[in-house]
Amino acid sequence: MLGTSGNLSAVISRTPLRLAITESSVAKGTLTPQQILEVNERGEAVRPKGSRPSAETLLHCVIARERGAGAVLHTHSVWSTILSDVHAAVGAVTISGYEMEKGFAGVRTHEHREIVPILENDQDMTRLAARVSDVLRDRSDAHALLLRQHGLYTWGATLDEAERHVEIAEFLFEVLVRKHTMEVMEKRT
Amino acid sequence: MLGTSGNLSAVISRTPLRLAITESSVAKGTLTPQQILEVNERGEAVRPKGSRPSAETLLHCVIARERGAGAVLHTHSVWSTILSDVHAAVGAVTISGYEMEKGFAGVRTHEHREIVPILENDQDMTRLAARVSDVLRDRSDAHALLLRQHGLYTWGATLDEAERHVEIAEFLFEVLVRKHTMEVMEKRT
Amino acid sequence: MLGTSGNLSAVISRTPLRLAITESSVAKGTLTPQQILEVNERGEAVRPKGSRPSAETLLHCVIARERGAGAVLHTHSVWSTILSDVHAAVGAVTISGYEMEKGFAGVRTHEHREIVPILENDQDMTRLAARVSDVLRDRSDAHALLLRQHGLYTWGATLDEAERHVEIAEFLFEVLVRKHTMEVMEKRT
Amino acid sequence: MLGTSGNLSAVISRTPLRLAITESSVAKGTLTPQQILEVNERGEAVRPKGSRPSAETLLHCVIARERGAGAVLHTHSVWSTILSDVHAAVGAVTISGYEMEKGFAGVRTHEHREIVPILENDQDMTRLAARVSDVLRDRSDAHALLLRQHGLYTWGATLDEAERHVEIAEFLFEVLVRKHTMEVMEKRT
Repeated sequence: MLGTSGNLSAVISRTPLRLAITESSVAKGTLTPQQILEVNERGEAVRPKGSRPSAETLLHCVIARERGAGAVLHTHSVWSTILSDVHAAVGAVTISGYEMEKGFAGVRTHEHREIVPILENDQDMTRLAARVSDVLRDRSDAHALLLRQHGLYTWGATLDEAERHVEIAEFLFEVLVRKHTMEVMEKRT
Repeated sequence: MLGTSGNLSAVISRTPLRLAITESSVAKGTLTPQQILEVNERGEAVRPKGSRPSAETLLHCVIARERGAGAVLHTHSVWSTILSDVHAAVGAVTISGYEMEKGFAGVRTHEHREIVPILENDQDMTRLAARVSDVLRDRSDAHALLLRQHGLYTWGATLDEAERHVEIAEFLFEVLVRKHTMEVMEKRT
Repeated sequence: MLGTSGNLSAVISRTPLRLAITESSVAKGTLTPQQILEVNERGEAVRPKGSRPSAETLLHCVIARERGAGAVLHTHSVWSTILSDVHAAVGAVTISGYEMEKGFAGVRTHEHREIVPILENDQDMTRLAARVSDVLRDRSDAHALLLRQHGLYTWGATLDEAERHVEIAEFLFEVLVRKHTMEVMEKRT
Repeated sequence: MLGTSGNLSAVISRTPLRLAITESSVAKGTLTPQQILEVNERGEAVRPKGSRPSAETLLHCVIARERGAGAVLHTHSVWSTILSDVHAAVGAVTISGYEMEKGFAGVRTHEHREIVPILENDQDMTRLAARVSDVLRDRSDAHALLLRQHGLYTWGATLDEAERHVEIAEFLFEVLVRKHTMEVMEKRT
């Protein structure tokens, strides 16, 4: 469900902020306790001593702090990779009118407009973390964000909620790509 | 097989009408007896006392009553979400000429025209239930119906038959979306 | 692998022709010995007494006889349903230049032209069986045939070979549908 | 994960070059030790005596030698088959700007241009092996190559790395096919 590679983190302390986070290059289905690190709010490893967390750890910290999330998930999927690129010029994917949107925390009706911001990808994590922080403040109602040609970040009060948000977002991304293609076809017949 | 989320109900008494129905937010594959409620014909919980069935329960009751069905299934799939939206203006998806249609109860030949009505989605379940009831009377030969940008409702004399109807409908929806795209391409070459 | 529904038969005697064949409406993964019938060359049940084989049994008999096959497989898949319809006017799907064609018995190079005949679907099995017989004689080099908007028939010297032919055909059908769409796109850019 | 059919080899000695390689027609998931052969640098079986390795063995040897790879994987997938054909005239698939490219050994940023050469398919393995050797020298930075209408070859220092390269390449091929279709659509709306 979590797609090829990606990262998973859970908040274990709010003050000071401490996250348990998976190592970056962990093979699917073979996660061991040794591959889970504890990091501080700057994304530095607290435990085990001397371990080197993945560069993207800082994004998890920023999201956990800005959203007060209990868990953050980062996935790489075909649909999120495509949508993040095709809609990059617009800067966001807009999702509207779908019952499935009610799967996002706090959404009570399909008459909801979910705007998923898209950020340009960047290997400089400090710079990217600052931009993620800005976007989260600008879009205080967003449940997820996309990195262009890279993947999805979403979060939740609990790990279960964060996982549900991944499922919901991926379902809707697939619908958008497939529907768009068919609709254009329709119009031309 | 039942898709992301969705609901499943089975008639346990016809007079008075009583349905066993799954709770709305039950995770897939982890259904426990405690997550199955008994409801009356108005969709109110009879057992366990004080439990709160999902809002869509009323649609199950209407379908069970109007069709004399033994089981009702509601699923959310990518294909049904797309088709229900793309064909919304026409008000129905028409399926014709497929051998697979013989999987719908009572259909004996591929020379059959299955019309799947599409209803606009609505969070007001009393209003939506009344419209579902009307549609079922207008389309007395329909085996399934779609809620726009939401999903599929189908039913059967038994749970097995209802499950078969989900499989048949989903297969045909996928064929329709994929074939339409390719056919338009063909015509233009 | 065998797709939704479909039938499987194996020759148990050549003279007189006797086939072991699955019942028509058998649920996937729950096949029991009681659901396998023995039929004669006219598709009539020999054992158990009084059992009623599916109408399509006759097609299995014709293919086993015409091809001297040891096993016949009939599957319903999304890709075969689409291709059989889109290419119906041409009367065949032509597959050429693919390494995967070497999976068809006797094919030694990708420089092979596999022609998969398409027949109009028909509920009259006697009439359809006669047409299948004609097509198999006209196309003595075919490894498979399609019934329009219905599905695939393929066969092999053994059940393993027939299963490999299903995999090969389905792989190539999927490639053809997807590639055609992308290629047309390419030409227009 | 390895797709329909295909081959897997691992270097067991560098000087002289010896590879352990799977037999060509081995069914998925049923590999036994007897189905693994030891071959020399000319692709001839060393052990067991008298065994006949698949014709494509020579390509594994050439790749292992030219790249100093510890493992070579050959897979047949729908996406690689399509892309290798659609881009054949250009002679390569170019992948650029994707975070997932960092899964290729030595790639540190998404601002990387991966060029996957495409070779025309050929049943003459000596001739094809010579062309593969040439291409690998011309494209010393390539992590994979495609045979037209046939499939993917990739490799790695270890079997794990080679498997990761298959996953990365297949993911990116799927994205390219799906995104291309949607993008052209976008431009025309």
